[in-house]
Amino acid sequence: MSDGFTLPPSLSIAGDRAAAERILSGIWGRRGVFTCTVANTMTSTIPGVSDAGDTPELTLFTPAADAELLVLGRTVCMKGIPINPGGIPTPATLTQAALNLSSMPYHIIDAGCKVVPNIPCYAVGGTYGEAITCGHAVPDARRLYEMGVELGRLFARGTDYLIISESCAGGTTTAMAVMMAMGVMTENLVSSSSPKNPKELKSRLVAEALEAAGTRIGGLADDPLKAVECVGDPMIAVNAGMIVGACETVPVIVGGGTQMAAVMAVAARMDPSCVGKFIQGTTRWLVNDPNSDIVRIIHDIDPGIPMVYVNMDYSESPYEGLQAYEWGYIKEGVGCGGSSVGAIVSSAGRIGCRELLDEVHRLYRGILGITD
Amino acid sequence: MSDGFTLPPSLSIAGDRAAAERILSGIWGRRGVFTCTVANTMTSTIPGVSDAGDTPELTLFTPAADAELLVLGRTVCMKGIPINPGGIPTPATLTQAALNLSSMPYHIIDAGCKVVPNIPCYAVGGTYGEAITCGHAVPDARRLYEMGVELGRLFARGTDYLIISESCAGGTTTAMAVMMAMGVMTENLVSSSSPKNPKELKSRLVAEALEAAGTRIGGLADDPLKAVECVGDPMIAVNAGMIVGACETVPVIVGGGTQMAAVMAVAARMDPSCVGKFIQGTTRWLVNDPNSDIVRIIHDIDPGIPMVYVNMDYSESPYEGLQAYEWGYIKEGVGCGGSSVGAIVSSAGRIGCRELLDEVHRLYRGILGITD
Repeated sequence: MSDGFTLPPSLSIAGDRAAAERILSGIWGRRGVFTCTVANTMTSTIPGVSDAGDTPELTLFTPAADAELLVLGRTVCMKGIPINPGGIPTPATLTQAALNLSSMPYHIIDAGCKVVPNIPCYAVGGTYGEAITCGHAVPDARRLYEMGVELGRLFARGTDYLIISESCAGGTTTAMAVMMAMGVMTENLVSSSSPKNPKELKSRLVAEALEAAGTRIGGLADDPLKAVECVGDPMIAVNAGMIVGACETVPVIVGGGTQMAAVMAVAARMDPSCVGKFIQGTTRWLVNDPNSDIVRIIHDIDPGIPMVYVNMDYSESPYEGLQAYEWGYIKEGVGCGGSSVGAIVSSAGRIGCRELLDEVHRLYRGILGITD
Repeated sequence: MSDGFTLPPSLSIAGDRAAAERILSGIWGRRGVFTCTVANTMTSTIPGVSDAGDTPELTLFTPAADAELLVLGRTVCMKGIPINPGGIPTPATLTQAALNLSSMPYHIIDAGCKVVPNIPCYAVGGTYGEAITCGHAVPDARRLYEMGVELGRLFARGTDYLIISESCAGGTTTAMAVMMAMGVMTENLVSSSSPKNPKELKSRLVAEALEAAGTRIGGLADDPLKAVECVGDPMIAVNAGMIVGACETVPVIVGGGTQMAAVMAVAARMDPSCVGKFIQGTTRWLVNDPNSDIVRIIHDIDPGIPMVYVNMDYSESPYEGLQAYEWGYIKEGVGCGGSSVGAIVSSAGRIGCRELLDEVHRLYRGILGITD
């Protein structure tokens, strides 16, 4: 069925190379489904936590706006597209490019939004997460996880592999809190959508959250859903379930960075048999980030989780908003890495970084109102 | 791509035979996606209107229970499975069989439920419909239609054809009201899930509804969404949009009977270019119903809509609950006809009525607690 597999220059591997090549060769040239799970956590409105929006309040609009952008090609809940301060466009622009080129089916899941996207999307009956400093941020984490398992099973039907991803501003802080509560991370190694990663603030908030939850680093190692319930966000609960449900029958590309690391940590603890059936799909920008260490984070979760990343490079782009990706801004999100890996995989390498870059430029010109 | 097409004995055609064969041959042996749109209309709680539930109040649970049955293989919102008075099982049992055998991907859409299914499903922000006798049953019909168009486009990605269907108790009465308001039906030709079709009651309610809406037969011929807004249900609005959105790129099998006739009438009026791109997929039980005339209903909507029906026959079934289908009970619903046609089409005829019947029996024994 699948075309012969040779790793193309558009992709690189980190971690367990043999496992990565085994999974990639099994889905090479085959059909995938892309999903993106959106949620809000009030953690993003704590000033200084998230740069995924022009102001702390606007970070609540970013997940819904990203989802609208993917489905409608434009936003409804806000004017313009989600930007970081400085005008850097959401990574959803790359996701859009990958979905356009691959014609891959996709679905948006609302795990719990305060600002609900104005599009048809999968609902699981979730509500937005509270700020993790309250110590009980996602009261219905277990139910959301179980909904995720059913979703994973549903999406796995009739496809050769599944891609899952997220847009949840403030999510690196909740991810760090969950991984620390589980003890799979003991020091702050997480990434940020800004090169000025507010590490001290994040560390302080996580310490506060663990204390409010009456636990400590590693205190919830045996109860990952409790960790999500106390200091996580709704996206983590749903996506962890989706990995477990989908891996029963198909391989999964877990698209994203630090936030999806927490998702993988929860999934691997809930159902250890899923390890070996999924890969992380991400970007060169994240893997090479000097201010975080995703390779070590993933290794610490489980050395059996391979990473595949797309070698997108915006340094020659004529647009400053895109060049900023090379200066440490954004790096990941909205499944931009996972969908790019998926486009390359499904096309058996016929789509590559060159084609993706051209399509990003075409879309970005549309956003800027430049006519071809 | 597609296997050679010859109409197998499991399928029959009514209406425009050439159009039916053209569409069927284009999707023969190819991959489809099944969807079922669930909704409530308070019309079903008017005593005597609906038999899709053991009591008028229980009819509100039927759509959610049908959806749970398809996704989970069991119900959560109520005990047991939806039954008509007398213990006749929901047609979702046949839908389940078709989905099991075909491994077809599927999605549930909640167009507006009072009793919400306990499963992940697509949400469109809809609320349940009021009783049509109020004259303004679905205030947000236009927005629901537009959501349906986006859904149709989404589901059409990466698939070769789309099946749409419904579970909405009370829906033959709302369908009749919409078709009368549009003037595509001028006398009561609609079906019922009971052989004692309460025709007089339905006719009286529709007359009341049209008067409450300040209109008359044919009074909303030029404004089909206004007809849905006044005297329809949320399912009709969403599914009509889905036909229009999906038909932009792929053929559609419209699975169902009278209720889906109203959906097709609205879609054909909203976008006449979709006629010729969809077929009705239904059952022999409905086409042969002596108490309704679906062939004439469809012809009156547009002679360019072909009908394909599955020749399922429960007369030799050892189970009385299933034999009742031969006595005029149930006949259609939950896309049982459309999903059966889809299973036969996608398997290029390797799945037929025999295989479907065996699987229905296996599932029904599970429901009755009979171990193989």
